[in-house]
Parts: sequence; C-alpha cells; structure tokens
Amino acid sequence: MTELYRHHETYRGVHPIVPTAFRDDGSFDPDSQRRLVDYLVQIGVHGVAILGFLGEAHKLAEHERRQVIETVLDQAAGRLKVLVGVRALGTAGAIAQAKEARELGADAVFAAPLPIQNDEALYAYYRELAQESGIDVLIHDFPENFTTILSPQLIGRLADEVPGIVGIKLEEPPVLLKTSQVLDLAPQLAVLGGLGGVYFLEELQRGAVGIMTGFAYSEVLLEIWQLYTTGEHEAAATVFDRYCPLLRYEFQPKLGLAFRKHVFMKRGIFESDYSRTPALKLDERSRSELEATIGRVGLDLSPVVL
Amino acid sequence: MTELYRHHETYRGVHPIVPTAFRDDGSFDPDSQRRLVDYLVQIGVHGVAILGFLGEAHKLAEHERRQVIETVLDQAAGRLKVLVGVRALGTAGAIAQAKEARELGADAVFAAPLPIQNDEALYAYYRELAQESGIDVLIHDFPENFTTILSPQLIGRLADEVPGIVGIKLEEPPVLLKTSQVLDLAPQLAVLGGLGGVYFLEELQRGAVGIMTGFAYSEVLLEIWQLYTTGEHEAAATVFDRYCPLLRYEFQPKLGLAFRKHVFMKRGIFESDYSRTPALKLDERSRSELEATIGRVGLDLSPVVL
Amino acid sequence: MTELYRHHETYRGVHPIVPTAFRDDGSFDPDSQRRLVDYLVQIGVHGVAILGFLGEAHKLAEHERRQVIETVLDQAAGRLKVLVGVRALGTAGAIAQAKEARELGADAVFAAPLPIQNDEALYAYYRELAQESGIDVLIHDFPENFTTILSPQLIGRLADEVPGIVGIKLEEPPVLLKTSQVLDLAPQLAVLGGLGGVYFLEELQRGAVGIMTGFAYSEVLLEIWQLYTTGEHEAAATVFDRYCPLLRYEFQPKLGLAFRKHVFMKRGIFESDYSRTPALKLDERSRSELEATIGRVGLDLSPVVL
Amino acid sequence: MTELYRHHETYRGVHPIVPTAFRDDGSFDPDSQRRLVDYLVQIGVHGVAILGFLGEAHKLAEHERRQVIETVLDQAAGRLKVLVGVRALGTAGAIAQAKEARELGADAVFAAPLPIQNDEALYAYYRELAQESGIDVLIHDFPENFTTILSPQLIGRLADEVPGIVGIKLEEPPVLLKTSQVLDLAPQLAVLGGLGGVYFLEELQRGAVGIMTGFAYSEVLLEIWQLYTTGEHEAAATVFDRYCPLLRYEFQPKLGLAFRKHVFMKRGIFESDYSRTPALKLDERSRSELEATIGRVGLDLSPVVL
Repeated sequence: MTELYRHHETYRGVHPIVPTAFRDDGSFDPDSQRRLVDYLVQIGVHGVAILGFLGEAHKLAEHERRQVIETVLDQAAGRLKVLVGVRALGTAGAIAQAKEARELGADAVFAAPLPIQNDEALYAYYRELAQESGIDVLIHDFPENFTTILSPQLIGRLADEVPGIVGIKLEEPPVLLKTSQVLDLAPQLAVLGGLGGVYFLEELQRGAVGIMTGFAYSEVLLEIWQLYTTGEHEAAATVFDRYCPLLRYEFQPKLGLAFRKHVFMKRGIFESDYSRTPALKLDERSRSELEATIGRVGLDLSPVVL
Repeated sequence: MTELYRHHETYRGVHPIVPTAFRDDGSFDPDSQRRLVDYLVQIGVHGVAILGFLGEAHKLAEHERRQVIETVLDQAAGRLKVLVGVRALGTAGAIAQAKEARELGADAVFAAPLPIQNDEALYAYYRELAQESGIDVLIHDFPENFTTILSPQLIGRLADEVPGIVGIKLEEPPVLLKTSQVLDLAPQLAVLGGLGGVYFLEELQRGAVGIMTGFAYSEVLLEIWQLYTTGEHEAAATVFDRYCPLLRYEFQPKLGLAFRKHVFMKRGIFESDYSRTPALKLDERSRSELEATIGRVGLDLSPVVL
Repeated sequence: MTELYRHHETYRGVHPIVPTAFRDDGSFDPDSQRRLVDYLVQIGVHGVAILGFLGEAHKLAEHERRQVIETVLDQAAGRLKVLVGVRALGTAGAIAQAKEARELGADAVFAAPLPIQNDEALYAYYRELAQESGIDVLIHDFPENFTTILSPQLIGRLADEVPGIVGIKLEEPPVLLKTSQVLDLAPQLAVLGGLGGVYFLEELQRGAVGIMTGFAYSEVLLEIWQLYTTGEHEAAATVFDRYCPLLRYEFQPKLGLAFRKHVFMKRGIFESDYSRTPALKLDERSRSELEATIGRVGLDLSPVVL
Repeated sequence: MTELYRHHETYRGVHPIVPTAFRDDGSFDPDSQRRLVDYLVQIGVHGVAILGFLGEAHKLAEHERRQVIETVLDQAAGRLKVLVGVRALGTAGAIAQAKEARELGADAVFAAPLPIQNDEALYAYYRELAQESGIDVLIHDFPENFTTILSPQLIGRLADEVPGIVGIKLEEPPVLLKTSQVLDLAPQLAVLGGLGGVYFLEELQRGAVGIMTGFAYSEVLLEIWQLYTTGEHEAAATVFDRYCPLLRYEFQPKLGLAFRKHVFMKRGIFESDYSRTPALKLDERSRSELEATIGRVGLDLSPVVL
C-alpha cells in the first residue's frame, strides 16, 4: 500500500450505517445503542457509521446528537472506527457538526452535500468543511434523499485538491458506472459502496475498498468482503448470491429503517423498534415477508449472545 | 372466476415489455421484431407489451410506431395478446395512439399519465382515454420516468367508475405496499408487477395476477408464475431466489435497455443491439458483469432455436 | 447589419405567442383564429407564434395541429411571419412536427428541449432537428414548464456549430443575467424575450432583438419596441413603466391563458374563452382584478374594429 | 375586532424580511444590523422579520444565529415586533430554534415546512412546533425555495386545530388564488403577503392584513398599506402602480439579496454588501439597471439620516 493509497487502507472494510436507538416513549436509549456497538465489535466490522439518514439524525436535537456520539464512542472504546454523519442547510452548520465530532473523538465524518445544484458552491462547501473542521471527510453521494447530484468531475477535483477529502459513500444509480468513473478520476479516494449492499459484489470488483450501508446482517457483508479481499472471488460471489434475496428485499425505499429496527429488536439488541415521525411503520405483511426472506436465506432472528 | 374479477382472468400471466428492434443504421428491423415474437410464443408467455418506455416509443415517428404495431400483430397472429404503450403530452395525442392500437387489432393499451400533478385532470385524462378509444386501458404507474404520482385513491376511483380501466402496471416504490393499498381499494383491478421482476414473488403473494416487465429471460418469470399459480409456493420462491442475482443486476436504472438488447443479440433474436439516442451504451465492464451473472444463475447466451 | 447578424434582422420585432381558438364545445374555431391574425396584422406586429405552450399544442390531435397551422398561414398570407411551436417526447416526433411546419410554409419553429438533463443528448436533439427539418429553429428555453435547463455553454455551442439554430426565446429566470451570458457567447443569435414582457425594457437594453410572449396587448410591446429601436430610450422606459402594473398582473403562473382568452373574447376577436382541460378557469375575483388593472393603465376591453 | 380575528390585529402591517449584516470579512456586523432596526423604527414599520431565507439563516452557526436575535431585540427595545425565522431538517431542530426565539424575547416565529411531501407529517410538525415552543407560529409557505407544497386544506386544518398557529406568509404562485382559498377555509388566520410586494395591492384586496417581504423600500409598502387600510383604495392603487417597475425589478429570483444589500449600503445603513456563499454577486449591469429603476420611480439612494 503506497502513500497515495493510504485512505484505502484507513477506510477499508465494512462500516454499518446504524439506526439510533429509541425507547418506546421516543427518548434516546443509550443501553440499546451500546448493545449494538458490542454486537458490531463482536462480529468484527471495521467501523460504525452513526447519525446518517438511517440514524434519523435530522430528527434529533443538538444535545441528543451529542449524546449519541458520546455514547457510541464510549462503548466503542477504540475497538472499531466511529464515523459521524454531517448534514446541514449551510456550511456553518455542517462545520459545527464536524468540529463537534472531531472534538468528541470520532475518526471521520460522512457529509451530505448542501441542497443546491451548483458545482462551485459545492466545491467551496466541501473544501471549507474539510479545512475548518480538521477531521477526515467522506462525501455522502445520495441524490435520492439529498436531491443534489455530484458529478464525477467535481468529486475528482475535490479528491485532488482538498487533502481532507478522503473517501466517498457512493449511492447515485447506476452506481457501478459511477464507481468506475470516480475511480478513473480519483484512484486515491476510498470508495465505499452503499445502497443496502445490493451491488456489493460488483462494487468490490470495480475497486471499492468496502461498504457503508444499513443492511441488518453485517456479518453477511463481512463474509463477502473477507472472501473477496483474500482472493476468494468465486466464493465471495456464491455467498453474495445466497443472500441476494434478502439484500434485495431489505433495500426497499422508505422501509429500510423499519426493517432494521425490527431485526435488532427481535435479536435482543434494541429494546424497541420505535422511530420518530415521519417514518413508515412496519405493517404486518411486510414483517411477514421480511421474516420469510430471512428464513429462506438461512439467517434467523434469534437473540444474539453478547 | 366471477364476473367481478374477469379482468384478472383476461390479463393474468407474463407479458414481457419488449424493446423495439433496430438495424445498425438505426432503422426499424421487422425481421428481428418478428423473431422476438416467435421466441415469446415458443416459451409460452401470455402477451407482449410493445411501445413502452423500454420500447423507445418516444423516439419513433408516427409511421414507425404504426409499423411496429402492425409487424407484431401480424407475427403474433392471435398466438399471444398484444398490448401497446400510450404516452403523450396531452389527452388528444393519447387518444389518437389508443384508437390506432384498437383499429390495428391490439388487445389493450398501457397508458402513462400526463406529466401533471393534479388528480382531477388525471382522472379526466384516463376517463376520456378509456371512453373515447374503446380499448381496454391499463394504467402505467411509473413515476421514476413519468414524474407523476398516482395515489391509490385516484386509481381506486378510476377502477370503480370507468369501465374501460381494467388493470395497472404498478411501479411506484415501495411497490409492495402500494400493491396492497390499490387492491384494498379496487380488488377487481388486474394488477401486474413491474420493476424488472425484482419483487415478483411478493407481488404474486399480495394479489398481482401477473407481470409486465422487461427482464430478458421471460422463461424465468413464467416458471415462477406457473409454480405460484398452481399452488407450488415454496418451489416458486426457490426459483425466484435462484435467479434473484440476475433480476437485481439487470434492473439498474438507465442500463436495462442495453442489457436486454445485448441478450437478444447474443441469443440470435435481434440482429443488432442498436438503441436510438439518448441511450447508455453497454460498456465493457457492465457487459462482462452481466454475462458473469447470467452464468452464475445457470442461464446462457446461446442462440435460441426457433 | 452584417452577414454575422442576419438572424437579428430576420427575427427582430414583436411576435405574440397566441392561444388556439376554440368554440364553446371545445372544437377548433378557425374564424376566431383568423380574426386574431387580422388583428395582429392590423396593429403591425412582426410575426405570430402559434402552437406554443400557451397555444395548448399538447392538447391537440395531429390533424388539429395541422389545421391550426394551415388556417393561420392562409390568413396571414405573407403579411407577417408565422412561427410554429415544436415539442415532443423524442427527436423523431419533433422532426416530424418541424417538417410539417416547413412543408406548410411556416417561417420558423420554436422548439422545446426534450425532457432530459443531458447536454450531449440535447445537443444531438437540436442539431438533428435543425438539419433534418430544414427550417429555421429557435430554441425555446422555458424550464418552468419543460423542466430542462439549457446552459449558456450548450446554447453557445449550438449557435456556433449548427447553422439552422437562429435564435432563442429566453425564459429561465433570472432572465436578464442569462440574456447577457448567452449573447456574450453567441452574439449572432437572435435573442427574443419572453416571460410576459415583464422584463422587456431591460431585455432590449441587454441586446434582445425583440420578444415572443403572450401578453394580450401586443400594441404595448410594439410601442416599447419601436421607441427603443429608434433610439427613444427614455420614452420607451416611460411607456414600459406605464403598463408595468398590467404586465405584472397578467404574468401570473397558470392564469395567463385564461387572462388572454378573456381579453380576446371581450374585444370581439375570439368567440369563446374556452380552454381544454387541464386549465384554470378565470374566477370572478381574478377577472375583476384583471379588468381593473387594464383600466388603471389606460387600456380597455372594447371590441376591436377589423 | 372580535376575538376570532385577534391574530389579524396582532400581525397587521408591514414586517420587512431583512438581510443579516456582514462585514467585508464575512463576520456578523451588529452595528449595521442595529442601524437597520433604527431605520425601520423611524419609518414606522410594524415588525421586523429576521433569520429568514433572505437573512441567510442557513449560512449561520448556532451562536451567530443567537447573536443576530439578541442584537435585533436589544436595538428594537419594544419599538417594533421581532419575528424570527425557523427552518430545520427535522422537528427537534425547529423546536429548538423556536424555543430560543421565545426565551430571548421574540414575538413570533415564521417557520418553513420540513422538506417532505406528506400532509400527516407536516401537520404533526407544525402542531408539535407550536405546542412545544410556546411561541406564536406563522407558517412560511414558499415552495420555490423549500420545495414543499402546503395545501389550503392542510393550512386550514392547522389554523382550526392548533391554537399556536396564528398566521401565514403566503408565497405559492398564483398567490392571489391561494390567498382567497386559505381565507375561505381559515378566515381567522393572519395572512401576510410576500413575493417582494409584487401583488401587495391585490393581496390587501383579498384580505391579507399586511406583508412580510424583503423589498428594500419598506416606506413604499407602508404607504400603500396605510392608504388601503384607511379606505383610500384608489390612492393605494396609484401609489402601488407608481412603484410597480421597481417592485417587479427587485423581485428577480436569486438576485434579491444582492439588490437589498446594495441599497442598504448605498443608503449608509449597512457598512458592507457582503453575502456569504453561495450567493449571486451584483454584476455591473444589474446594478446599473437597479439604480435606473430606483431613479425612474422617484426614489433615491442617498444616505438616510437616523
């Protein structure tokens, strides 16, 4: 691994985007959040990504945001990386979030673009964010929710000219084409897949160093990643195919959060599957489809032993 | 099958949305189009859906549109249903397309909404279209490309009040929730799945009577449908899961057309994989991923024998 | 006027975008349409622009479209230019419309972009349209209705490289900045203002050679244009300011068509103010506000004498 | 004034939306902000609306936001109402902003909707915001920037069922129709016009009790309001028409902020016309057009005497 590719080394692996745990009354539940960290440490993922869109960051007050970061960092205790989501309506707000993450001890932030379609303004935003916060910044490229399109050219320019821009979580479909376009322009960037893991196999084949997504069974992504990165390409594909029906099912727009909280509750990690409004509730039919699919791919919902 | 559910009977089954065949010079290729019809008759699908978005209908001149319809109807010769896509900027244009389809002998049209977000205007559009054209109308609900959202309430009202509205091709994600919402309001409607077949198993479980989509291997969808509708639910799921990696891979935004034309060309059905601009070309990496996935699920690209 | 600026000469002046006349039963009313042409000839405008968005072109069947063109060309009889709107879902449909306009004898078309956001595809579309139709093409830049953004760079490239691209009807706000940006890149282009005439004074100051818009009192626009182009800049501003309250009032989104048809009906030009659905009807309050504003600026609704 | 219409009484009048003053180095400039308050008190407006979109609220850090509120409240010293803008990505963030406004002593907040298109979620958002913050809430209906559409039905329901919802700043075009629709459903609501004052005359005629907008010459809006509310309807129209060319010119999308800061700087109120990125700079041509228009309507840029 040369110096050029040092970010590949730093951010390789599986980094689950995790929900924020709430009690049934809607308050933050630090105990559940800690159990989730312990579970992720136990299965061996490389990092945990908190306060993303799935983490309902936009529904939290400032002090709750801080509490989630502190709780996760305390429980992680250096056993895995902690990456913190940044999203604001303007640059000053984003810098404040990133500085807080750095001061509390997080490893990096993954930052949504501003909701504007203007390359110069977006470049200035990410440059200021990286320079003024002093923490590693991964770009979060997710137009379905953030509406902003980030062109490969803009991403390449940021990677080349701004030292603090170290990676990207790529989620603009068709994501495989964009993965190659971005890596052609900025091979030094640590590209992480997303989109629920639905294209993880091909993302790895195209040069992604890992993944940052919300799929509830991180152990599956980890198995694929380990096989692939140790050269067992066929075995990686076999494992990917086995779990494909579930990857596909879980990755339905608007339903992902309810699916993941349901799994974590059934497995004894979360005390409650509560999500703050606005959020789709898990209806009976979807719950039953989810559980059937989990069963068909050979996984289960039995409680984890921590 | 009671009278109430007669549309279920009429539109049950697998109705591939097919590309329009072009020669390398961009002109319509009737011979290739006829071979595709023969292939679909041979594998036993219930209908063929032409001139949809995948059929590049918006890139055809009026006389080419007519030529495609005539060619397919002539070759079909009653051996399978022919459904024709309708999409225009206003009601008069849509009615003209639907009337032409009826006069040429098609069985039904599947009609995109107008690009307006106004329930009263959309209701009036579909009512006039059905009444004035005199041909069965299936609603094409596909906001990703048409931008218009059709609420379950609007769909239910159309199904109840307009006799010519017989079915719907449902493609607004999360599509499974909407399938149930629509059938709760309008159980008499023939609901067909779409979205590349990615949710076909669950669509059937929720009451869809079939599917209308562009997945290149209709034989796979047919096998799933036959098993499911003859009560072999577990076997249907097993078959679905086996092909899931390919269903998933093929269903990438913007790339589907190139994938399907490539498969049809390699299998000797289409002479050329030409698509009219604007269209994404099949890049080398995507081609290789597609072929690898086809191979992994046990399908092949060997020429069909007609 | 050098050769470079010959399009300025050809397309200078006031070219009203006009509604299509319908009878109360919704059928095309050629007599009213002819009266409108006579009225426009009488007041001395330079051209008439038919079958635009205001002309409800998207609500007409093919044969009605042809009938409108034939009626207007016949009545115009060379007394003013006739420009025809082109808008389709794909290139082939647009070319067919432009060819029909040329074959019937129109002077030019003004063409909406395809509903795609892709500069290469848009360039190809306008180039093919101009080359294959053989008629002068003005770009219609109106993102509020067409959704597509046309960058000054794309417009400049088309003006430089495609001989048939002769002008542009500019309507992307802030329109004055864009007028200057486009003319900096393509000074040879005939830029026509739009947006109801609300910025006509400044459009002329920035280099527009005329206007193409739907404001009901073309005589006002003509007076401003004549004063300005004969060097009476202050007088032009005085006239503009006098009518500004009406220009502003008429230019309300979604209501413009009802306003214009009401004026034409009251003035005895149109027999009916009927618009095809979907269209906002003129409510009593808006009618009364419109008439009050017409009165305040010193205009009236008395019948025209033809 | 009956009890039913008490919000009309409380929020009647002219409430300028004001920019935040920065020094040339981009830092907040409390002295300029105080001068602006003094100027507004001197001309006699009813309130001042800070931290709106024009106030660049989204570009401020939390502590700057607080500083702006404190500075304005301190300088206002009860001489005019202070209304504070609220806009966040989720309910918790909005409540925190509204609570801070109340605790610092503001009179009301005007609150942007969440960027979601879901009536139930929007209802819950505004209800929680009003109930938990304990401060009067005016809805800010401005889809051009916030993307969310608020239906008259939703607005009416909020007005009827949530005591803290006292008014609305209406800016969805065509705004006059919506003004009437909203007041038909919720006559008790204090409706304030917006959109740069371009429709102020007709807004008053349709029942608005005042205006909240950024037009740089609040004295003009005040003169119109005073004439209209004392029954001098014709005189109000005459004044409105006189200034219409400037109202129209200033109200160009994306340029308003630069226009207003330029005016305030030239008039000696603001030390600098600095705006934080992303922002359009005032180009030479627009500056010159603006100044010409100011001159034509009989206003000037001479320094104010405070």
